Amino acid sequence: MSHTAKNISNSILGFTVEKTIIDDHGVGRARAATVTLPGSLGRTYEIRTPVFMPVGTLGTVKAVATRELTEMGAQIILGNTYHLYLRPGHDRIERLGGLHKFMNWDKPILTDSGGFQVFSLSKLNKIDDQGVTFRSHIDGSSHRFTPEHSMAIQRGLGSDIVMAFDECPPYPATQEQVQKAMRRTVAWAERGLNFELKPHQARFGIIQGGLYENLRTQSATEIGSMPFDGFAIGGLSIGESPDLMQAMCRHTAPLLPADRPRYLMGVGRPEDLVEGVRAGIDMFDCVMPTRNARNGQLFTSQGKVNIKNTRYADDNSPLDPECPCETCTQYSRAYLRHLFVCGEVLSARLNTIHNLSFYLRLMSQMREAILENRFDDWVKTFYTNYSKHSAVNSSS
Amino acid sequence: MSHTAKNISNSILGFTVEKTIIDDHGVGRARAATVTLPGSLGRTYEIRTPVFMPVGTLGTVKAVATRELTEMGAQIILGNTYHLYLRPGHDRIERLGGLHKFMNWDKPILTDSGGFQVFSLSKLNKIDDQGVTFRSHIDGSSHRFTPEHSMAIQRGLGSDIVMAFDECPPYPATQEQVQKAMRRTVAWAERGLNFELKPHQARFGIIQGGLYENLRTQSATEIGSMPFDGFAIGGLSIGESPDLMQAMCRHTAPLLPADRPRYLMGVGRPEDLVEGVRAGIDMFDCVMPTRNARNGQLFTSQGKVNIKNTRYADDNSPLDPECPCETCTQYSRAYLRHLFVCGEVLSARLNTIHNLSFYLRLMSQMREAILENRFDDWVKTFYTNYSKHSAVNSSS
Repeated sequence: MSHTAKNISNSILGFTVEKTIIDDHGVGRARAATVTLPGSLGRTYEIRTPVFMPVGTLGTVKAVATRELTEMGAQIILGNTYHLYLRPGHDRIERLGGLHKFMNWDKPILTDSGGFQVFSLSKLNKIDDQGVTFRSHIDGSSHRFTPEHSMAIQRGLGSDIVMAFDECPPYPATQEQVQKAMRRTVAWAERGLNFELKPHQARFGIIQGGLYENLRTQSATEIGSMPFDGFAIGGLSIGESPDLMQAMCRHTAPLLPADRPRYLMGVGRPEDLVEGVRAGIDMFDCVMPTRNARNGQLFTSQGKVNIKNTRYADDNSPLDPECPCETCTQYSRAYLRHLFVCGEVLSARLNTIHNLSFYLRLMSQMREAILENRFDDWVKTFYTNYSKHSAVNSSS
Repeated sequence: MSHTAKNISNSILGFTVEKTIIDDHGVGRARAATVTLPGSLGRTYEIRTPVFMPVGTLGTVKAVATRELTEMGAQIILGNTYHLYLRPGHDRIERLGGLHKFMNWDKPILTDSGGFQVFSLSKLNKIDDQGVTFRSHIDGSSHRFTPEHSMAIQRGLGSDIVMAFDECPPYPATQEQVQKAMRRTVAWAERGLNFELKPHQARFGIIQGGLYENLRTQSATEIGSMPFDGFAIGGLSIGESPDLMQAMCRHTAPLLPADRPRYLMGVGRPEDLVEGVRAGIDMFDCVMPTRNARNGQLFTSQGKVNIKNTRYADDNSPLDPECPCETCTQYSRAYLRHLFVCGEVLSARLNTIHNLSFYLRLMSQMREAILENRFDDWVKTFYTNYSKHSAVNSSS
């Protein structure tokens, strides 16, 4: 290994931990911090953590406009390298001025490496130590990603945080399979580090190791010693139980450098975010709030609401009385149900606005509770309230 | 006939003509006016005409929120009685506080009578002098509308302008068929007049007569002599050529009372709106800007743009450089094309915002030109510019 010691003194990403909650075992876990990034638009970005990043797969967070993202307090969004590479193409986006300009978003963007989609969405042809050959899920055309190519695409997109290319093994997989993917991910991380990005672009390494604690430990030790600006836990929430996922997160998070942001990829339900923050995670992304919104499943302070349920047909009350979002302050449950049942475009939008607002507010509430040293109480209250409606709904 | 003389002195709808353009034959045609309505929300509405009414079929103008309608200058929208009767039901909307509250719209709403949809969209079972029995296009369930029932539904919805129930014959149809429908529409108009509405609700009569000038004359004379608050020309733009439609509009409009608003139903293309205003029409509605937006056909000051065209893939310029709408000021043609090609929800929204903005601005430009006595020049300039892009597009 060429990088056995951390060397992030010249990191372009600033990370200041403002408060860490000391748990019963005396080990710091939940924390509030500020990430600073130089930005490509001539100004410095500040991101307050813990933070949730709405997923903007194809240059749009599905069903909402960027002005709504700003209004609901989104600080950073995620773009999908695999999707944007296929449509409209990273070269095109670069020619048009970069992803920020293309989609009219003037805050930070994190792009994933494309690895997860290549392994989960496309038809794989071949994986070798050099890279991955796959077929597009759209038209079956053949493509090849290498660690360098993934970096080059993300450079073209001009994102603010670039993820190293990783191999994400399926679940379940044998320890041998997972170990092989983990070792390859370490090698690919090294190669990614040597690829020159744009001056404003920070880069994160990704921990793999499946559900094997020893492999997670090994991956965290090796990747964690490389001079990345931040570290992500990948390969979770791919079919294993929430308990197992949370346990693996609790195992891995504290192994990562405390002075760098920790990012739990693709997770998850509101309770998973709470448990992630408890374990010391700073950053999250997930399609759940946006995708479930389009399917009529809404998250509220009292639990989940299935808006197509007949019980809401005459319900003139707001979806979540505690929520200050546009949807909850301006529309009734009856109207939201009507829009959903009729398949109206506005349904996807109003539902997405609420679900994202709920997720973003959940994060800012946790941050506030951490800063005010009342995080444990906040967690207890959250679970008490959040189980109310779910109980009602599950009885219907 | 019980109403042979006009009796609108106690109309709740105020109508002040501010300017009328005298054409070459010395007959007034294009006009700018103000409609006042009492409103149900404790304040008086003012509508500046000529005006275009976006169509909000199911309690939502498809793909946009009411705040955007306000931002783009919409003064009044249309709700579809047939659709809202079926889903979610007028009784339910009334219980929930009326259509304004239900859909979060605090400006005027005009509801149609349901007649056009019953005749064009549902499966007709029986038409007789009492009413129409039909099957729902959604679930095949059987329903019956009478003139009184149509009024009762619109009363429940609480709209500001209520349309009389009419029979809309298909095109083509024999003179005998059209005459029969026209006579029935006159009888139904009488019955509609006798139905008690809410105190804030104005009511309009509808002229039928197909493409037969003599029947249009007869219908306009008879309906026009009844004490309606305004008069609509129905049964046009149902398959006949634009030339024929415009000719029939020019024939009928001047036969209607000059001191009441004139409304051309379901029309049409931008050039049809220009010709309608020339003929003395004050109000318009059409699904074209919203429906075509969702299909990627956009209206600009230089003509129509088919946004999926490959030529726009690398086009970083705004859709319509002259348009001040959110879509044109914040996004490129390349982005709009990308969203459309990928089937993103945001595509429908941004396209709809532009098309409606274009239609609404077209109307306000005409109003301004009329008030400033330069309407003929405006019309010439409009046609010169509007043909530019269409010529380019049709050559591709």
